[in-house]
Amino acid sequence: MRVHLAGLSLVLPFSTLAQTPSASFKSEVVQYHATIDTVKYVYGVTPPVARLRPGNILESNSLDCFGNAIKKPGDTLSLSKGDNPLTGPFFIEGAEPGDTLVVHILDLQVDGNQGVGAFAPGFGALNETNYTPMLHPPLPERIWFYFLGCIGVAPSSGEARSSVVPAEFGGNMDAPEVSVGNTLYLPVNVSGGLLYFGDGHAAMGDGEIAGTAIEVPMKARLQLDLVKGKHTNWPRFENENEIMAAGIYRPVDDAVRIAFTELVGWIHADYGLSELDAYELLSKVGKIHLTEMVDPNYVVVASIEKKYLPAKK
Amino acid sequence: MRVHLAGLSLVLPFSTLAQTPSASFKSEVVQYHATIDTVKYVYGVTPPVARLRPGNILESNSLDCFGNAIKKPGDTLSLSKGDNPLTGPFFIEGAEPGDTLVVHILDLQVDGNQGVGAFAPGFGALNETNYTPMLHPPLPERIWFYFLGCIGVAPSSGEARSSVVPAEFGGNMDAPEVSVGNTLYLPVNVSGGLLYFGDGHAAMGDGEIAGTAIEVPMKARLQLDLVKGKHTNWPRFENENEIMAAGIYRPVDDAVRIAFTELVGWIHADYGLSELDAYELLSKVGKIHLTEMVDPNYVVVASIEKKYLPAKK
Amino acid sequence: MRVHLAGLSLVLPFSTLAQTPSASFKSEVVQYHATIDTVKYVYGVTPPVARLRPGNILESNSLDCFGNAIKKPGDTLSLSKGDNPLTGPFFIEGAEPGDTLVVHILDLQVDGNQGVGAFAPGFGALNETNYTPMLHPPLPERIWFYFLGCIGVAPSSGEARSSVVPAEFGGNMDAPEVSVGNTLYLPVNVSGGLLYFGDGHAAMGDGEIAGTAIEVPMKARLQLDLVKGKHTNWPRFENENEIMAAGIYRPVDDAVRIAFTELVGWIHADYGLSELDAYELLSKVGKIHLTEMVDPNYVVVASIEKKYLPAKK
Amino acid sequence: MRVHLAGLSLVLPFSTLAQTPSASFKSEVVQYHATIDTVKYVYGVTPPVARLRPGNILESNSLDCFGNAIKKPGDTLSLSKGDNPLTGPFFIEGAEPGDTLVVHILDLQVDGNQGVGAFAPGFGALNETNYTPMLHPPLPERIWFYFLGCIGVAPSSGEARSSVVPAEFGGNMDAPEVSVGNTLYLPVNVSGGLLYFGDGHAAMGDGEIAGTAIEVPMKARLQLDLVKGKHTNWPRFENENEIMAAGIYRPVDDAVRIAFTELVGWIHADYGLSELDAYELLSKVGKIHLTEMVDPNYVVVASIEKKYLPAKK
Repeated sequence: MRVHLAGLSLVLPFSTLAQTPSASFKSEVVQYHATIDTVKYVYGVTPPVARLRPGNILESNSLDCFGNAIKKPGDTLSLSKGDNPLTGPFFIEGAEPGDTLVVHILDLQVDGNQGVGAFAPGFGALNETNYTPMLHPPLPERIWFYFLGCIGVAPSSGEARSSVVPAEFGGNMDAPEVSVGNTLYLPVNVSGGLLYFGDGHAAMGDGEIAGTAIEVPMKARLQLDLVKGKHTNWPRFENENEIMAAGIYRPVDDAVRIAFTELVGWIHADYGLSELDAYELLSKVGKIHLTEMVDPNYVVVASIEKKYLPAKK
Repeated sequence: MRVHLAGLSLVLPFSTLAQTPSASFKSEVVQYHATIDTVKYVYGVTPPVARLRPGNILESNSLDCFGNAIKKPGDTLSLSKGDNPLTGPFFIEGAEPGDTLVVHILDLQVDGNQGVGAFAPGFGALNETNYTPMLHPPLPERIWFYFLGCIGVAPSSGEARSSVVPAEFGGNMDAPEVSVGNTLYLPVNVSGGLLYFGDGHAAMGDGEIAGTAIEVPMKARLQLDLVKGKHTNWPRFENENEIMAAGIYRPVDDAVRIAFTELVGWIHADYGLSELDAYELLSKVGKIHLTEMVDPNYVVVASIEKKYLPAKK
Repeated sequence: MRVHLAGLSLVLPFSTLAQTPSASFKSEVVQYHATIDTVKYVYGVTPPVARLRPGNILESNSLDCFGNAIKKPGDTLSLSKGDNPLTGPFFIEGAEPGDTLVVHILDLQVDGNQGVGAFAPGFGALNETNYTPMLHPPLPERIWFYFLGCIGVAPSSGEARSSVVPAEFGGNMDAPEVSVGNTLYLPVNVSGGLLYFGDGHAAMGDGEIAGTAIEVPMKARLQLDLVKGKHTNWPRFENENEIMAAGIYRPVDDAVRIAFTELVGWIHADYGLSELDAYELLSKVGKIHLTEMVDPNYVVVASIEKKYLPAKK
Repeated sequence: MRVHLAGLSLVLPFSTLAQTPSASFKSEVVQYHATIDTVKYVYGVTPPVARLRPGNILESNSLDCFGNAIKKPGDTLSLSKGDNPLTGPFFIEGAEPGDTLVVHILDLQVDGNQGVGAFAPGFGALNETNYTPMLHPPLPERIWFYFLGCIGVAPSSGEARSSVVPAEFGGNMDAPEVSVGNTLYLPVNVSGGLLYFGDGHAAMGDGEIAGTAIEVPMKARLQLDLVKGKHTNWPRFENENEIMAAGIYRPVDDAVRIAFTELVGWIHADYGLSELDAYELLSKVGKIHLTEMVDPNYVVVASIEKKYLPAKK
C-alpha cells in the first residue's frame, strides 16, 4: 500500500548545480570499449566495467538498439539478442546516495555507416500493426543530430530496471537533450552511481511515435563530475542558454506536471523567484518537449531560456 | 450510449486543400467593429454580425479574454463580464455542412497598449491555488508574437459550446499556430459556417500552464475561403513550410493520437505516402506542440516540414 | 484561456438535501407521451413540453437509443434518425440557477418486448472494429434491471450539449444508479431547470465496454422536487442505504478524483466529519463504480453506505 | 527505444488453467516463519527461504506494511524500516519461464490484535497533504475481510521491482481478490518462480484512495501448483463463480483496457466464444473493480460470472 512519491513533492531543495566543469577537474581520460559480450540489459547494481574520478573524461562506445545485429535489408529483429544493450556500468569514485551525478556531453559520433529504423508488432503510439521491419535510406545529412537514447544510473530502493523503461534514474528517455554541449544531472542512488548508456540516435521525431528513430552505434566522449550532498529527483539538463527538467510517467499529463514542478522548484531554489512567480513566468515563456510516447513510461522535458531568469543566487 | 467517434477513424479522405487563396478570390474588404455589447460567449447558431463571400477579407477586432475590463493594477477579475468574449459570428456565403472553411491570417496587431496576465483559483496545470490576480510588466518586446487564442465555427449536432472549451470545431485552442502567415482549416457544420474569434495573445509558454498568456485586445485581418465538398475532422494549419494537424481532448496522450492520426491521413491523401510510411516518417521527423494543458480539453498540434514530403498529388 | 473549474474545488457547501419527498409535496400527476416527432437530441434551452410543480409526479416514456428504429434482425443502424433521442424538456416551476433539482425515480418499466444491443465502427473501449450491427437474444430475465442511460438538465453558460455527452449537467451517464428507489440530484442552470431523459437500459456491464447495453424503450414515473438555494456541482444519488457522487471526464483517473472530492465534500457538509477524516474513511469502506468508458466523457460513481456515517447534522 | 508490449496484444493463447488442485497434489505442508530480519523489499532473484513442490501447502505469515512497527497511538511512520516487507521468496520445484504459477488461497487470519491505518505526505488519490499519521478504531467486525495486498513473483527481463509497485508480475495489487476461496495465476519468469507476499489488509475501500487500508500482520495458508507450458500475461483470479483478469498501469483507462483485453482472450481461449462475442457479452454483464489508485501503477480487475459463459472447452 505505502508509496513514496518523492518526485511529486512541490518543495524542491535543489540548487547550485555545477554549471560548468568544476575547477577541481582532473581531466584524465578513461577509455573503454563495449562489445556485444559485455553489454547489459538492466540498470542495476553489478560489477563496474571501469572506475572514474570526478573530472575524468570517458571515451567509450555504444551498440545500436539492436546490438548492431541488423546489417542489411532482409535481416530481421530476431537477430537482436536484446533491446537497448547498455555500455557500463561506470563507477564514479566518491559518489554516494544523495549526491548528483553530472555528465557533460562533450562529443558524440556515429560509430558506423548506417542507420536503422524499424517498427514491429505492438510498437508505437498509433499502431497495433503487424511485424514489419524495414530499412530506411539515410535522411538528408543536414537534419541529423546525434544523441544517446539511453543514459541512466542504478535505481533507488534496490530496484533493477529494464533497458526499455525510463524513470527517475534516467534510462530510455530518447531525449535529444542528451546531445553535445548539454550537461545532464542524475541522482546518485548507490555508491559509485553506476552510469550506463546506449541506444544512439541520429534523427528522431518528437514522440518517436512509430517506436524507432534512426538507430546507430555511437562513439561517446563524456566528462563526469559530482555535486556532493545535493539530491536530484528527476533527470535535469542544462546548457549555456537553457535549464531543462524531465518528467517521466504516464499519462503525458502527469509527465508534464512532474517536469514543470521540477522546473518551478529549480527556478525557485537557484534563481530566487517565488514558486508562484516561477509558475506564472513559465506560463508565458516555458517550452515543452514530448520526447517519446512509446516506451512503457512517457518522457517530457520542460525548459526555459536563461535570458528570462534573474541572475543566479 | 451511442457515440460517433468520427475524429478517431484512421481513414481520412482529406485532400487538395486550398493552399493559397484561390484564383476566384474577390478581395472585397468587410469591416466590422466588435464591442463589449456585441460579443458572444458561446460557439453556436445565432444571427450573424456580417456576411462575407469566399475570397473576401475581414478587418475586425477582438477584446481581450477579460473583455478589456482589467485596466490597471488593483482591478480584479470580478470586473470581467465573461471569459473569452468572441467577435462574430460571420456568415460565409455558400458554406454548407461537409465543406471546409479556409482562414488566411493576414495580419494581427495588438489593439491597445498593455497586456494582462493572471491566475486565479482552479486555473492552471499545476496549482490548486487561491485567487491571486496580478498584473505583469510586459515581457521584452522581441519575444512577443501575436495570435488569436480563440477561433472556431458553430459545432455540429446542434451543440452550442462555451468560449472556454476547444473541440473539433476549433474554439479556445490557444494555438500560436493561429498567427500571421498561416492558414487555418475548419469544418463547416452549419450553413454559413459561422466563424467566431477572440482572446488575443501576445507571448505564451507551451501549455499555458498557469492558465493565462499575455492577454491583449487585437486587430485582425483575415481572408476567408471555402473548399467545397471536403470535410475536415479537426482543425488543420498550413504555411509555406509545414502542414500541421490539431488533436483536442484529454488526456494529452489522446490529443497526440488524434493529431498524428490526422497528420498521417493528410500525408496519405495529399502526398501519396502509404499510411504506414507516413507513420514511420513522422517517427523520424515529426514535431509535437502542446499548446495548452489548462482548458477543459487539451490541445496538441502535430506537424511536419514539407521538405520531407514528396510532391503533392 | 480562462477556465472555470467549479467542479474540482475541494470546498463543497452542499448540505441538507431533501432525502425524501418534502412535506409540501402536491402529488399531482402530469402525463406526457413522447414520440419520434417530439424527441430532442441536445440538452439545452428550448420550449418545454410540459410544466410541473415541485412534488408533482411525471408519467412519461422514452424511445430506445435508436429511436425504436431497429425492429428485427437485418435492420441496420442507418434506420436511426439520431442517437439517444430525449424526452422533454420539462419545466419545473420555481427552479432557478443555483438550486438543485431532485428526481425521485419511482418506477421504470420496459415499454416494449425486445432489447437491442449493437456495436459499430469506432464504438467501444477496446475496438477499432468494422461496422458490425447485430441483434442479441435477450439475456436471462433474472439479470435484467432497468435504468435510464440519459437524464439531465440544460447546461450552464448557455451551452447546448449533444445527447451522447455526459457532463456536469448529467446527460448520457449510463448509470444504473438511475433506477427505481434512488433519488438523483442535478444542478439547476436555467429557469425551470429543463429536465430531459431517455436511452433506457435493461442490463449493462460495468464500463459498457462495447458501446451498447440492452437498449429498450421505457415507461418512467418520476417525482420532481427542488432544493432552493443549494447548488450541486455534479450529479448525486441517494437512497435509504447509500450516498453516491458522480465524476465525469477523461481520463478515468480524473473522473475518480472528481467523484471522491464531491463525496468528501458531501460527508463533510452533511455529516460533520472533517474532510481528512472523510477521505480516510472512504479509503477503508468507499466504493467505485465505473459506469461507462465509451462515451466522449467517462463516468464514475463513488459511494459509501450510510451505516458508516454519523447521524446527519 | 524498443518496447515489448506483450500484455497489450489482443490474441491470448491462454487456456485450460487448473481450476482446482490437480490430481497429482501431494499435500505436504511446508511451514516458514518470517521476521523483520528475513523480510525483503524487492521482488527479484535472491536465494529462496524455502522450496515447495507443486501441490504442497505453505503455512507462513506476513508482517504488516509498516513491519509491525506501529504499536500504539503516538508511534510514527519513521519507526518503519521499509514499506511493504515481503515474506519469501519461495522456490517452486519445476517452475520454468513460460509456466503459470497457481496459488490457491486456503486461509488468511489476522496475526495480531490491531489494525493500522495512516496517511502521510504525498499518499493518496486526492491529497497533497501534510504528514498526518493516525490510528483508527477498528471498524465493525462484520465488514472485515482479509487479503494480501502484496503477492507476486520475480519479474521478467532481469528486473527487480520495489515492494510498492504492482506490475505484470503481481506485487502491490491491493486486490481483495487475493482472499480465501480464490485462486491466483501468476507468470513464471525465472526458474522456481520465486513467490513473495505480504501487506495484509483487513477492510479496504475501492481505490484505497487515502493510501492505506486497515493494515494487519497476517497468517497465510496457500496451496501452490503449476500449469506447465502456459504463459500468463497479467495476474488472473478464479473461483467457483467467476473468472477475473487484472490490468495494471496508468491511467486507469489503460488498466481497464488491459484487464478486458485479457478477459476477452481468456473467454475466447477457454470457453470458445469469438473475441467479438466475448467483447459484446462483457459490455452487457462484465464487472470492473478498481482496487487501488494510489500506488505508482493502478490496478483494475475485470470479471464475469461463469453462469453467463458456455461450458468450458
